[in-house]
Amino acid sequence: MTLQQLMDRRDRALGAGTPLFYGNPLHIVRGEGVYLYDADGRRYVDMYNNVPCVGHANPHVVEAMARQQSTLNVHSRYLHEGIVEFAERLVALHGLAIESVVVSCSGTEAVEVALRMARIATGKRGIVCTNATYHGNSEAVSMLTRLAVGQNTVRDARSFPFPEMYRPLLPGASETELADAYLASLEEAIRNLEHDGAGFAGLIVCSILANEGLPDIPRGFMARAAAMVRAAGGVVIADEVQAGYCRTGQWWGYQVSGFEPDIVVTGKPMGNGLPLAATAASKAFVDAFRANTRYFNTFASSPLQAAVGMAVLDVIEGDRLRDNVNTVGSYLKQALLERKVRCPSIGDVRGHGLFIGIEIVKQDAEKTPDVTRTIQIVNRLKDKGFLTSNAGALRNTVKIRPPLVFKRQNAEAFLAALDETISELNG
Amino acid sequence: MTLQQLMDRRDRALGAGTPLFYGNPLHIVRGEGVYLYDADGRRYVDMYNNVPCVGHANPHVVEAMARQQSTLNVHSRYLHEGIVEFAERLVALHGLAIESVVVSCSGTEAVEVALRMARIATGKRGIVCTNATYHGNSEAVSMLTRLAVGQNTVRDARSFPFPEMYRPLLPGASETELADAYLASLEEAIRNLEHDGAGFAGLIVCSILANEGLPDIPRGFMARAAAMVRAAGGVVIADEVQAGYCRTGQWWGYQVSGFEPDIVVTGKPMGNGLPLAATAASKAFVDAFRANTRYFNTFASSPLQAAVGMAVLDVIEGDRLRDNVNTVGSYLKQALLERKVRCPSIGDVRGHGLFIGIEIVKQDAEKTPDVTRTIQIVNRLKDKGFLTSNAGALRNTVKIRPPLVFKRQNAEAFLAALDETISELNG
Repeated sequence: MTLQQLMDRRDRALGAGTPLFYGNPLHIVRGEGVYLYDADGRRYVDMYNNVPCVGHANPHVVEAMARQQSTLNVHSRYLHEGIVEFAERLVALHGLAIESVVVSCSGTEAVEVALRMARIATGKRGIVCTNATYHGNSEAVSMLTRLAVGQNTVRDARSFPFPEMYRPLLPGASETELADAYLASLEEAIRNLEHDGAGFAGLIVCSILANEGLPDIPRGFMARAAAMVRAAGGVVIADEVQAGYCRTGQWWGYQVSGFEPDIVVTGKPMGNGLPLAATAASKAFVDAFRANTRYFNTFASSPLQAAVGMAVLDVIEGDRLRDNVNTVGSYLKQALLERKVRCPSIGDVRGHGLFIGIEIVKQDAEKTPDVTRTIQIVNRLKDKGFLTSNAGALRNTVKIRPPLVFKRQNAEAFLAALDETISELNG
Repeated sequence: MTLQQLMDRRDRALGAGTPLFYGNPLHIVRGEGVYLYDADGRRYVDMYNNVPCVGHANPHVVEAMARQQSTLNVHSRYLHEGIVEFAERLVALHGLAIESVVVSCSGTEAVEVALRMARIATGKRGIVCTNATYHGNSEAVSMLTRLAVGQNTVRDARSFPFPEMYRPLLPGASETELADAYLASLEEAIRNLEHDGAGFAGLIVCSILANEGLPDIPRGFMARAAAMVRAAGGVVIADEVQAGYCRTGQWWGYQVSGFEPDIVVTGKPMGNGLPLAATAASKAFVDAFRANTRYFNTFASSPLQAAVGMAVLDVIEGDRLRDNVNTVGSYLKQALLERKVRCPSIGDVRGHGLFIGIEIVKQDAEKTPDVTRTIQIVNRLKDKGFLTSNAGALRNTVKIRPPLVFKRQNAEAFLAALDETISELNG
């Protein structure tokens, strides 16, 4: 069967327009550690996938999965030690304010829980988010996707311009003035919700603004934003689906960005590919959510999720992957910052740990985003055996987010391929 | 650790009020086939769980799961034959009108997709459901839960009284008159949506009205309802999360109830415990959904879901479990109908295949539901080693929904325990 035949079958069975990566899509058949292999046996360094955080086909995870599935896998209305132990371990990864957790199957489901929890806790409905975010695909969550600032067509949500240093709201302002300006926008969004009747329930934000393009955030903004939200009677929801689980070199993105959330949403890396997500908060918040919703989720809080979830935590802790993230991430970011100096098309290099964005711009004074070139780079890197994607608010950021087992030698090989690519594209 | 200590830890870690079955909750540690075992080594016949449809710890499923997880498990934006093949097999289980499928992780997610698909297809928002239903736990879906007839507080949904023969809307009416009466209620709900501005997008209904209590439905109602929905410009969504996958002795509940859906939602049994769900429809519907939403689901349409999903289909087909459902289900229902004649507290026995409800009533002329006795029966059956629950619109129905591998000997043992229980409770 040719690639085209497989694509045709896929279009019929899954619908035309089912998302696919790359100009020439990859037909992947096998993974191991940080590597993926296509149907022709070609090896790729996976620099995109955060879900298989402890490595593709990690044997410890496979064994835990098989052992639990061959022992017991039932819903959560029976008592089971594993799921209690897993929940306790999750909670212990946060500060003392986070006490209990609602487990679910996807980031979308976990954000649904967080929004309902915030609304129950406050008795209000309105949610503030940034103007270039994505938190999930359900109806209540997808209304937050790239919501324009000032838009009043959606009753329950308002956005504010995400804080950034590279294309600042006030060009030429100091970092403090810039933080003030973004805080004023946040305040306006909150007031807007209060005045039109929905009321203000809380702020949801990816702790490191991943979908926005990992911008450098004006110093102090996040802590001051959290204080503003609480002063307005709202709660702070940290979306750690991408930011959490040692991705940044800290356990949680909110540690990097310097604020304390009331509700924490986690997902992608938790199960190394098994659907698994969670919403953690104070016991008072979780109890109120339980009492108000009688929430039950057939596949969640299962012995299988617990066993696999704990196996992932075991590997992260046992193999000291956070240290690896810090070491390799620092090396890679430093090397990319050097290239920013000498390559005119690299407008900015940002991020934390093993989550780095390279912003590609035209060679002009306006930092004009160059999406075409970004896509060219991503496709050429793929052809050279390195998997990335283009992302960010303007889609002109090369997104680097490999499994946490990504090593220095992988980074070195990638840098060589990147240099070659940039040279081919004349800078 | 005592049961109470485990329950206290659970309350702290997962929140007070996290749902638990039975007066004295079960601490389950192992499963095999149709059996579950508690921490004291006690064996229970599982007569509740439809998720492990091919049996707890089914070795074929475990092997497929371990093999795929140790080979490859990535998101769906790469080409992968398994997920295409699985989608093709799912679609082939329906008639020709069902052509494509959107895979997700839970019934809730699959219903979210179905509602958004119906709204995109029609350009309208209003959904009609029954007044005693449950379709999922997200914000947009949970608004359908037990929505009262005539309620206008929810803009996008209206309910109508679910059709039934046991407590009919018009006492003394003929079956045809009764169908007419329920159809008039459905029509009123549709008109109500059309007149208040939301418009009518479609009807969502469990094909066998499982949460309503598996009522006998007036003959012809479902086909006539589907025709009425289409004549009003709406689409028919069959929720087959409980009804599908041979549960009724047919592949799909809509075959038993005699109608053709436009959109089919499946979930629970698909992955034998792996989170896996799907929304199937015509290619035109799925294409329009894809084009309008750019829907992507991180954990869904994965090689793991495909491999496990196909292993479940292999076992259902290879072990001829549909035949088993028909044989054992008929035996059990017949035996229960005999008990209905001689036990005054058994008001009704209903259902299809291996999904049977026993409605428990007081010994009066009004068929007064006896929830207390229903719970007593469920708890006593548990103590005798048989796991059921109480369900239905009035919570007075003993719900029997075992794995599809439930055998005649299990049914015989259950009947003995039921007879004993009823005798203990004096009829």
